Amino acid sequence: MTISNEDKSNRENRRAPKAKISMITLGVRNLAASLAFYRDGLGFPTYNYVEGQNCIMFKLEGTWLALYPRASLADDAAVASRGSGFPGFALAHNVGSKALVDETFAVAVAAGATPVKEPQDVFWGGYSSYFADPDGFLWEVAWNPFTDLT
Amino acid sequence: MTISNEDKSNRENRRAPKAKISMITLGVRNLAASLAFYRDGLGFPTYNYVEGQNCIMFKLEGTWLALYPRASLADDAAVASRGSGFPGFALAHNVGSKALVDETFAVAVAAGATPVKEPQDVFWGGYSSYFADPDGFLWEVAWNPFTDLT
Repeated sequence: MTISNEDKSNRENRRAPKAKISMITLGVRNLAASLAFYRDGLGFPTYNYVEGQNCIMFKLEGTWLALYPRASLADDAAVASRGSGFPGFALAHNVGSKALVDETFAVAVAAGATPVKEPQDVFWGGYSSYFADPDGFLWEVAWNPFTDLT
Repeated sequence: MTISNEDKSNRENRRAPKAKISMITLGVRNLAASLAFYRDGLGFPTYNYVEGQNCIMFKLEGTWLALYPRASLADDAAVASRGSGFPGFALAHNVGSKALVDETFAVAVAAGATPVKEPQDVFWGGYSSYFADPDGFLWEVAWNPFTDLT
């Protein structure tokens, strides 16, 4: 099989994603216990946290950490929360536009990732997708119009 | 129960860890497949990688990503690789000295973390420990004399 010049050109013109993990989201069983551990125990600074929210973000140096109920994270990634299919956490790669979500998702799938959730508008106002790496570890590729994590 | 003034003072004098995830290590089943995916597929830059090494590090923007055989990562954390006790990945918090590993580990355990591997000299020349957060997610607290990830 040969690669046509057009295919090559498409491949070369597609930008490689920035080498960055924007956020690590841990799917937790008891949000209050995890908040107490990370905020009060380790001293990590929450970001815009309002009592009662179920997504808690910490702005760390270099990346973000989020806590989210385990079942909600599985729902968000459109996978079952029980069984071996859900690793219990997700890495996020944030980009600056919906078009870049589409493009980055396509790069990952072309590289052999398993598409898990096609890019789509999501309830919180962003645009998001999930793919799984060769071991089933989840990556969200997202555009967030409210907070720049890129 | 009341907290004595001495206890309070100890608590206040103990420095909070820097709010940072130094590295995310994914425990993978097929190192070659994962290397191909992350390096060739996503374009992530390896760091000092020599063909045949079983720990592959990528220097990303803001944090590091590492790939390590799943069973080796479990061994490193002194947990069983099968069953629900091993989440398949670890977050690392690197500090600048052995004493700071001891101190940070103690802060985490005082905050309710489960001690998994007491701080100790390890085979690769560093000094390392592991604790588990309330969900069993693993954190390594380590001093690496060769590469500054702090």
